[in-house]
Amino acid sequence: MALIVQKYGGTSVGSVERIEAVAEKIIKFREQGDDIVVVVSAMSGETNRLTALAQEIMESPTPREMDVLLSTGEQVTIALLCMALEKRGYGARSFTGGQVRILTDESHTKARIKEIDGSRIHAQLEQGNIVVVAGFQGVDELGNITTLGRGGSDTTGVALAAALDADECQIYTDVKGVYTTDPRVVPEARLLSSITFEEMLELASLGAKVLQIRSVEFAGKYKVPLRVLSTFEEGPGTLISLEEDSEMEDPAIAGIAFERDEAKLTVAGVPDVPGMAYKVIGPVSDAGIEVDVIVQNAAEDGTNDITFTVKRAECGRAYKILQDAAVSLGAKEVVQDKKVCKVSLVGVGMRSHAGIASKMFKALAEENINIQIITTSEIKISVVIEEKYLELAVRALHSAFNLGDPESAAESN
Amino acid sequence: MALIVQKYGGTSVGSVERIEAVAEKIIKFREQGDDIVVVVSAMSGETNRLTALAQEIMESPTPREMDVLLSTGEQVTIALLCMALEKRGYGARSFTGGQVRILTDESHTKARIKEIDGSRIHAQLEQGNIVVVAGFQGVDELGNITTLGRGGSDTTGVALAAALDADECQIYTDVKGVYTTDPRVVPEARLLSSITFEEMLELASLGAKVLQIRSVEFAGKYKVPLRVLSTFEEGPGTLISLEEDSEMEDPAIAGIAFERDEAKLTVAGVPDVPGMAYKVIGPVSDAGIEVDVIVQNAAEDGTNDITFTVKRAECGRAYKILQDAAVSLGAKEVVQDKKVCKVSLVGVGMRSHAGIASKMFKALAEENINIQIITTSEIKISVVIEEKYLELAVRALHSAFNLGDPESAAESN
Repeated sequence: MALIVQKYGGTSVGSVERIEAVAEKIIKFREQGDDIVVVVSAMSGETNRLTALAQEIMESPTPREMDVLLSTGEQVTIALLCMALEKRGYGARSFTGGQVRILTDESHTKARIKEIDGSRIHAQLEQGNIVVVAGFQGVDELGNITTLGRGGSDTTGVALAAALDADECQIYTDVKGVYTTDPRVVPEARLLSSITFEEMLELASLGAKVLQIRSVEFAGKYKVPLRVLSTFEEGPGTLISLEEDSEMEDPAIAGIAFERDEAKLTVAGVPDVPGMAYKVIGPVSDAGIEVDVIVQNAAEDGTNDITFTVKRAECGRAYKILQDAAVSLGAKEVVQDKKVCKVSLVGVGMRSHAGIASKMFKALAEENINIQIITTSEIKISVVIEEKYLELAVRALHSAFNLGDPESAAESN
Repeated sequence: MALIVQKYGGTSVGSVERIEAVAEKIIKFREQGDDIVVVVSAMSGETNRLTALAQEIMESPTPREMDVLLSTGEQVTIALLCMALEKRGYGARSFTGGQVRILTDESHTKARIKEIDGSRIHAQLEQGNIVVVAGFQGVDELGNITTLGRGGSDTTGVALAAALDADECQIYTDVKGVYTTDPRVVPEARLLSSITFEEMLELASLGAKVLQIRSVEFAGKYKVPLRVLSTFEEGPGTLISLEEDSEMEDPAIAGIAFERDEAKLTVAGVPDVPGMAYKVIGPVSDAGIEVDVIVQNAAEDGTNDITFTVKRAECGRAYKILQDAAVSLGAKEVVQDKKVCKVSLVGVGMRSHAGIASKMFKALAEENINIQIITTSEIKISVVIEEKYLELAVRALHSAFNLGDPESAAESN
């Protein structure tokens, strides 16, 4: 008998009908003899409705009261789901974050979980009840209601699984799992049966957004086996685990992530003296602009070119900051390019497989795609290219590394 | 500096605009230097919306989960009202029932308050904050969310006022206060500046429903001065107090209550032996039918007629029960009359004023209104009459006792 934590997001519980369908799904597991703890989000649309009410009053509502307000969304769902379970003859008990006691710090609207008391949940499981917990919320030391910020229900699920020492944490979503790349770009993209936490972190942060990144970090830290699967379709989903897949099928590459809407800024000809990178990047970061890829090349003349990427929407602001700073930096010029994108190969297998990078560059060269920036990490190679080539590049790489076909994937090593 | 508890119902906080208006009202009191604790209901319509969601799932939803669900309604209001106060520069803190700690018994959907911990509220008041508490809800010993049943926010207000030793509990509603009778029937009905708890209880239970009756009992028991007043119009409202009005203006009668939609049942010719009243009324009560006025008259032939009233909607059911029991009761016949109503004079002054009853009967006789049943208590005289005379009777009595005109009311004694 296993203890399973299941998390259902807002779309999965978006109507009474869907809540009833989720109840049926939960019961299937229960009937297999497993103990089930369910974490749910607010019904889709509810958080937006409540936020709109608050903003009718204040543009930036008091964070403490915002948490009191928004936490009602999940509270409605836990009650309705328990009713749907009870109606089917299964004992069910709902808990708000405060009732469980999910203790957080005091950072309203973006609180972090400090501790979870599993005793009330364990007591209910021992009585044979299904336990339904409100995601996204907790209480601070003084009993004030806090929320973990948008998407925080994933974190609640993983944290509960860790605290209860669950055998698996299942995150139900509207996709069947994690794919080798976005199936909308590459129709033959393959559903991964497993992936490591590190790979998942790289894929998630690079745009294949299935799971909230904080919850993946959390699961990795507390060694909670995490499974992503679909609420609406049957299937085993993707297991995110600590160990690399030890089966024969051991491809170097787990998947291909990409990021559209990137922009590239180059500060050219800055003096080659210590502190220049900070002087260039510092003011941009200070303005709240997230800087992604950063590369620096020494030119022949003893000056440096510092290039980095930002979200396209923030390029204009970053460009202005750099132009204003150009003189004091002693830079020759500031150049912006708003039409770039980033494509990344991700896979822990890279560690033990040589030649991945050259194979990647060859595949892109064969399509005449010019690489503007290259950055590498232990389990990732990213290239920045002209945006119009995005789909072509992803498809070429997917094919070059045989990601679409499980049978021949092993041969690509 | 006084401590005032104010309670605003669902209509008073039915929209963001109205919540903002309530905030303005609260601030007026705050600016007079008073400490304010506010109790609010769910926004009007919200409780019905949530109930409908639950009933899509189950006809009779699990009571525990129903409480989890419905308690979100008030939680939304406390957050929004605090935001409206904060926006105006006033410190405000919201509390759910569980956060205050309003401890109740475990009777979900109709819990009773056992104890209130005032310490967190006092601490916030000492810091100069306005405290906003969710009405209608509490927690049991185990921390399960409970609700006090519909209208329970009044009870929360009064119980909080008692626990905090408040100087006054103000119940804001959509009427200006308590009138001598229903102004829709008697346009010259007069707003009472004060009334005793006993009178209020009789008036409330008899149909002049301004306040939830449980809250009036509670206020009387804990000696909390209660004031009913309008959210939407200025005015002092009606003070419900322990002491009889000691001013010169001391009418015998506080007001006239009436109840439409009554029905009368008579079980005629039952043997005059002990236990008959129980044998007649018992089965009706056991069927969950509320029995109101009961009278018994001995007939000449040594048998009794037992007559009582019920809500008209339940008359048919009661009639059937009595017919089934008639033989075993040894009754001659069972008669029903679905077209009656009840009119009552209420006033603590009756105790010290003779002749009220005869004056009442005279006024009705002058209008040729036949009295079918008379019952009296220390502060009330009720008559059951044919329904078509209801308005006529109320107007005749209102005029006979000079209730409409404060100047001459004293003369009526």
